[in-house]
Amino acid sequence: MSAIDFRTEPSRYRHWRIEADGEVAYLVMDVDPAGGLSADYELKLNSYDLAVDIELNDAVQRLRFEHPEVRCVVVKSGKDNVFCAGANIRMLGKATHGHKVNFCKFTNETRLAIEDATEHSRQIYMSAVNGSCAGGGYELALATDHIMLIDDRRSTVSLPETPLLGVLPGTGGLTRVTDKRKVRRDRADVFCSTEEGLRGAKARDWRLVDEVVPPSKWDEAVRARAQALAARSDRPKDGKGIALTPLNRANGGDRTAWSHVEVEIDRARNVATLTVRGPSQPAPASVAAAHALGAAFWPLAVARELEDAILHLRTSEPAIGVVLLKTDGEAQGVLAHDAFLIAGQDDWLLREVRHYLKRVLKRIDVTPKTFIAVIEPGSCFAGTLAELVFAADRAMMLIGTREGDNRQPAAIVPGEANFGLYPMGNGLTRLQSRFLGEPEALDDLKARIRESFDAEAAEAAGLVTFAREDFDFDDELRQMVEERAAQSPDALTGMEANLRFAGPETMETRIFGRLTAWQNWIFQPPNAVGEQGALKLYGSGVKPTYGKDRV
Amino acid sequence: MSAIDFRTEPSRYRHWRIEADGEVAYLVMDVDPAGGLSADYELKLNSYDLAVDIELNDAVQRLRFEHPEVRCVVVKSGKDNVFCAGANIRMLGKATHGHKVNFCKFTNETRLAIEDATEHSRQIYMSAVNGSCAGGGYELALATDHIMLIDDRRSTVSLPETPLLGVLPGTGGLTRVTDKRKVRRDRADVFCSTEEGLRGAKARDWRLVDEVVPPSKWDEAVRARAQALAARSDRPKDGKGIALTPLNRANGGDRTAWSHVEVEIDRARNVATLTVRGPSQPAPASVAAAHALGAAFWPLAVARELEDAILHLRTSEPAIGVVLLKTDGEAQGVLAHDAFLIAGQDDWLLREVRHYLKRVLKRIDVTPKTFIAVIEPGSCFAGTLAELVFAADRAMMLIGTREGDNRQPAAIVPGEANFGLYPMGNGLTRLQSRFLGEPEALDDLKARIRESFDAEAAEAAGLVTFAREDFDFDDELRQMVEERAAQSPDALTGMEANLRFAGPETMETRIFGRLTAWQNWIFQPPNAVGEQGALKLYGSGVKPTYGKDRV
Repeated sequence: MSAIDFRTEPSRYRHWRIEADGEVAYLVMDVDPAGGLSADYELKLNSYDLAVDIELNDAVQRLRFEHPEVRCVVVKSGKDNVFCAGANIRMLGKATHGHKVNFCKFTNETRLAIEDATEHSRQIYMSAVNGSCAGGGYELALATDHIMLIDDRRSTVSLPETPLLGVLPGTGGLTRVTDKRKVRRDRADVFCSTEEGLRGAKARDWRLVDEVVPPSKWDEAVRARAQALAARSDRPKDGKGIALTPLNRANGGDRTAWSHVEVEIDRARNVATLTVRGPSQPAPASVAAAHALGAAFWPLAVARELEDAILHLRTSEPAIGVVLLKTDGEAQGVLAHDAFLIAGQDDWLLREVRHYLKRVLKRIDVTPKTFIAVIEPGSCFAGTLAELVFAADRAMMLIGTREGDNRQPAAIVPGEANFGLYPMGNGLTRLQSRFLGEPEALDDLKARIRESFDAEAAEAAGLVTFAREDFDFDDELRQMVEERAAQSPDALTGMEANLRFAGPETMETRIFGRLTAWQNWIFQPPNAVGEQGALKLYGSGVKPTYGKDRV
Repeated sequence: MSAIDFRTEPSRYRHWRIEADGEVAYLVMDVDPAGGLSADYELKLNSYDLAVDIELNDAVQRLRFEHPEVRCVVVKSGKDNVFCAGANIRMLGKATHGHKVNFCKFTNETRLAIEDATEHSRQIYMSAVNGSCAGGGYELALATDHIMLIDDRRSTVSLPETPLLGVLPGTGGLTRVTDKRKVRRDRADVFCSTEEGLRGAKARDWRLVDEVVPPSKWDEAVRARAQALAARSDRPKDGKGIALTPLNRANGGDRTAWSHVEVEIDRARNVATLTVRGPSQPAPASVAAAHALGAAFWPLAVARELEDAILHLRTSEPAIGVVLLKTDGEAQGVLAHDAFLIAGQDDWLLREVRHYLKRVLKRIDVTPKTFIAVIEPGSCFAGTLAELVFAADRAMMLIGTREGDNRQPAAIVPGEANFGLYPMGNGLTRLQSRFLGEPEALDDLKARIRESFDAEAAEAAGLVTFAREDFDFDDELRQMVEERAAQSPDALTGMEANLRFAGPETMETRIFGRLTAWQNWIFQPPNAVGEQGALKLYGSGVKPTYGKDRV
């Protein structure tokens, strides 16, 4: 499959419409069967593939940034009798293991973004389920805070993946059934192993939906509910959105450059270097000035570009096992922007930018690559950008300078941003996760905010893995990368997924840890993907043949 | 592989010795290379297979029940220069996927039992690591509360699975490194991807061990540490152990019977019926009388037999997908024993019995079979045995009586035991987990302890999934079992693993959820098990060839 582009905008959507109606927006799913990523399958019955979800992700972003006035988003279907049939099964049947995993990861991130919008932007999502709502369709509804189901005797919610396809619901369905909706486990067991699902009052009594409404009252009830949810929001009624203008991205061989981000690939070694440049302008003089900058406001621009770079590496560069994280610029500029972001947290736009940066950093946390932060003279690992060091699996820092390089020695500067702006999926900051075993080291750091840590101080404070002198640095880094590249990519992915999330678990970590891992397993053996497996045979009229052994 | 027998006793051990020295016992690992389950491999360098771990599990149990005077257990090696080389790699290379998974599950349970003994029996485990301690060897040490490492310049601790074998440490290593020992994540990353591991002061500074001791002071330091730990225990110095006498087990075709437990297998349908019989004797008149009964004391006998039955089904009956749980006897007898157990919790033996029942019930929670509780006249689902209903994936209860059966209608009787005696791995009781979404239902039940719930009352209170009349019951149950048997065993295992543990996560749920699931995945693709995979090629001198893609 050729490189997948995650950039889109509403004028190019083929599967979704945003119908704004004052405080309420309707996000209408109306999938074009011929609009999938591949011509191998048709997206019937509002089933989806990655192309559909790329638009959904874009719509969720734009509603936050471009529509501050929208306080409630109603997800509904543009088709009769079907809300959404879930992920397209023919697509899954033909997809490689890697594509399935990437597809599930991205769709999971989108559903978490819906929950994040509800919680942190107070743009509250609800679902108006008018028609059958199966598998990924129900998982989409589960990501919203309120599910309405029409009581027309045929509209159902269901998770038929296990009985029908021999796999698990892939976008958090099991986890949200047990942990968000707190469905009793025996009922969850019945529901998740019953192909036809549940409808009407029983679906409500079993906590699978929040209300059921007769057809005669449907439109009115949906509108009333949306307005009631909108009334709970604190979004500014008179806010003016900013436009998420098209990203500048230039490709040249193995180098891809955005305005502030650059990725360079060394194919011989399967290594990428991702460089983020600090701001070239001072922080805006006022909140109004930041609004005027819009998508050019440095923290927002960096968030968008870094996200695009990470998604590109993850989806289109599977053979790249190691990503070196670098920065380039002035620490003070980064810290000034951080201070500006923090001071303006009452402003809706600055709040959005902060949560967007949070989500982009979380994408790194669940990206199956080894990240090594490389901290050298000329870098600006301060505040928000220092978060890249703490998101990395390891960090190498140069002591002093290199011969012939007259820049100052590298420094790491912890900022306020590192102490609460960007929690990980586990609910802790990266520094909290890092210092679970040494809480006193964390307290110590907190007292040294905005202090420059040179390599030896950073190593002593536990901020980097290794500080090395010039004459060792390059060799050691090269050896580290080579060793990593020689190890099993599968084992490394599993190892990183286990080591990155110490401490508490949340619905989110459970989705990416427990659920994803089980799904990855189930996606492998013949019961799912063999010639007689359920995914392969779906739609052929032939029943799958399962090996019987339980493992 | 033929059926695996989990029954053993010290006189038959080939791999371990218990050397008791008053308050301190030394649990000495001295593996007989020729004593593995199969002649296909030699257990060199204190490497282990399931046969070795069956003895370890037995030793941990016996130390609790037969040695109340032991307050500290020192795990050490009986060989020179090697503590333990971990799971035998040739065994893993030859084992089926199912055997690998069962092996890891059982060894995980044993390590958790070591932690349970430390926490709840105050029989405190420590490791005296005198020699190389790799992979599963270090994971064994991690299960103990204190790790001493000899500082002889060659003894190391290591988790070489990822760099050497392309798999994960399979018995909780990653989880205990991050969550028990709280090793900083970048250091954990270095440690877990470095074949040779760490030694001496660095191992201590990185929190991988608790102390390092020079050889000249080793024996004295180990003894002193053991005595210091023993001093923290509340175990009775003058307690007299009870003998865990050999289990009675009779096989007859597809029926296996213990004294109070019976398993009958219907091979045509891949279903087993597991029946637990209530006590035939009244509860003992005194704690002394319970001690005199010893292994014949009903709750202890049931725990041992139920455990043996579950392990047998899990390991030797992989094709059995559904287990029907039944009981037979008088509710009052069960409740009387529960009351006796609870009243006597200050007694070391009764405390052991309670925690043993807890561990056996936890084995059900992680057993990859569908459990359906079948509640009919003549059953005694009360208190401890009602826990089987709450451990089941579903429960079917008969309303009223069957024609020609003059026994009373079935009842479920919640008891004190259901409200705290047997927490699951997530730290909650099964009722708490069940009613996460309806805390008021839990409060309601608490007010109705010892009340008999007939089928309709049980259904209304949320205790069972379905209450059915005689004329529907058998058909519906048969259909339920048939539907289940027709679904993908892999997907069902993944689904159950996700639905059974709602609510909080602990190190234990993370080991069985996150870590095990990743390992199951990694055990599948060719990088581990293919002809060029690391597990297959280990020891051949040929380097594995890995596909490069990260997924």
